[in-house]
Amino acid sequence: MSSTRPGPVILIVEPSGGSSRRHNPELAMLYADDLGVTRGDGIFETLLVRDGSARNLERHLERFAASARMLSLPEPNAAQWAKTTAEAVADWVDSGGDEAACVWTYTRGRESTGRPTGWITVKPVSEKVLRQRREGVSVLTTPRGYSITPTLPERGAGGGETPPWLVTGAKTLNYAANMAALRYAAAKGFDDVIFTDDGRVLEGATSTVVTVTGKTLRTPPPGRDLLPGTTQAALFSYAGTHGWTCLEEPVDVTDLLSADSVWLCSSVRLAVRVVRINDRQLPETAAVAGIRELLTAALS
Amino acid sequence: MSSTRPGPVILIVEPSGGSSRRHNPELAMLYADDLGVTRGDGIFETLLVRDGSARNLERHLERFAASARMLSLPEPNAAQWAKTTAEAVADWVDSGGDEAACVWTYTRGRESTGRPTGWITVKPVSEKVLRQRREGVSVLTTPRGYSITPTLPERGAGGGETPPWLVTGAKTLNYAANMAALRYAAAKGFDDVIFTDDGRVLEGATSTVVTVTGKTLRTPPPGRDLLPGTTQAALFSYAGTHGWTCLEEPVDVTDLLSADSVWLCSSVRLAVRVVRINDRQLPETAAVAGIRELLTAALS
Repeated sequence: MSSTRPGPVILIVEPSGGSSRRHNPELAMLYADDLGVTRGDGIFETLLVRDGSARNLERHLERFAASARMLSLPEPNAAQWAKTTAEAVADWVDSGGDEAACVWTYTRGRESTGRPTGWITVKPVSEKVLRQRREGVSVLTTPRGYSITPTLPERGAGGGETPPWLVTGAKTLNYAANMAALRYAAAKGFDDVIFTDDGRVLEGATSTVVTVTGKTLRTPPPGRDLLPGTTQAALFSYAGTHGWTCLEEPVDVTDLLSADSVWLCSSVRLAVRVVRINDRQLPETAAVAGIRELLTAALS
Repeated sequence: MSSTRPGPVILIVEPSGGSSRRHNPELAMLYADDLGVTRGDGIFETLLVRDGSARNLERHLERFAASARMLSLPEPNAAQWAKTTAEAVADWVDSGGDEAACVWTYTRGRESTGRPTGWITVKPVSEKVLRQRREGVSVLTTPRGYSITPTLPERGAGGGETPPWLVTGAKTLNYAANMAALRYAAAKGFDDVIFTDDGRVLEGATSTVVTVTGKTLRTPPPGRDLLPGTTQAALFSYAGTHGWTCLEEPVDVTDLLSADSVWLCSSVRLAVRVVRINDRQLPETAAVAGIRELLTAALS
């Protein structure tokens, strides 16, 4: 393994199939009329690369396909994305990389061609992520600022469904508000936010909230206005068969403060412990070490 | 003027100042790690080019600067953007183009460099826009599906303000939901949507709603969850000094049906008349011709 960190590996995924192409990250790649940039009209997934392979692959493939459906993008070819991911990871390992973040991006493509654009990037895990894994994160709770009103169009049939054009539940490229929320938190001296709605816990800016109390894991019910978390799903799947009770049920802000521990789950950070919520420190208890082991086992 | 339509003109705006660079639109331009595409972290403006110049320039510059502030992007240099716009339009005219759409895009830039990315594209007005100007548009009214809850963070001071991280009012690249709404409308046989909230008219997917009744123009009050419309502002400014009463006040869906005429205002389509709302035709009255003249005068 080389002593310097390798640069990113980029492989272009041809939407019509065929072989992938390696792209030099120091060269421009996207056209100015790609709807992924001009309208944020695209989706992505971020996977952890560890020990030479992309983790939690099936759940990411499923969510990627679901996101594409919600945006009426042509269905991504799962076998092709999986194969290209393996190639990109192999390139990464060959160039001396170890743990990494692998990002899939898939857009509606150039306005002038109508063909989707797809690519896979493998890049180092940032220093910030490594630090947050070690030290945990301080979190500001804050109302998300909007509520989904699950009404249907006036001309539509039925009722109670989330309007399809909101594309909630799709992991789109539309992260300007999430990024603004993280800047807002940082300006107030926090690492992250947990969004709330009238005291009910929703999710982090880029993560799923999980609480641990005794042998019980809890997360707010995913779906509707919460993006289903692939890391939380892997954790619950493993923990549920190893003696833990795993519940998807409403969590209040007060539940966060009374839990044994609170975690933000996401693909690359994995599970980072919340060490402070607003002005309340959450001390590390003896149980935290055991939970860390569980998380490591579940996610590796 | 050539008989074939010219291709787009692209000029790169260097964020640190200096001269602009012309970019070949058939070559890739953006890097794979540009936050404009990976997170939709950027803003844009679309201007009409007519008779050799970009129209309504000051209002677009103002909104562009306001959008940048809301996203904590470095303030765009107005003089530089105006100058580069004039250069791009001159290039466009030199290559035989006449009426056009000019798009400014400004992103947080490459993750690996931290320098913003900016560019200006001048391209033909689409056939669809030309047709909608002539024939008007059919519109589906539909609840937007979410409500802004103007609460402040639990630790914040005051109350009643739109949460800053929602970046509502900024014209960001996050248009996936708007595009999905237009696909939804198209699938039901409509050209466009007018979003509503509990019977109150909000805005079009990419336009401001204006009603005309007698000598009175009305538009829903901009701000908070409605993007201030540069075209509607130009229209009201002109009409207000030419014998019209111009009101920013709540408009209900029933007001749309009882108005003399209803218009969707945006930079390149200008004002297109709504010819059908849901299953109701809105007949062209004798007054419509006069309103068209007003709109043309105000926006030229």
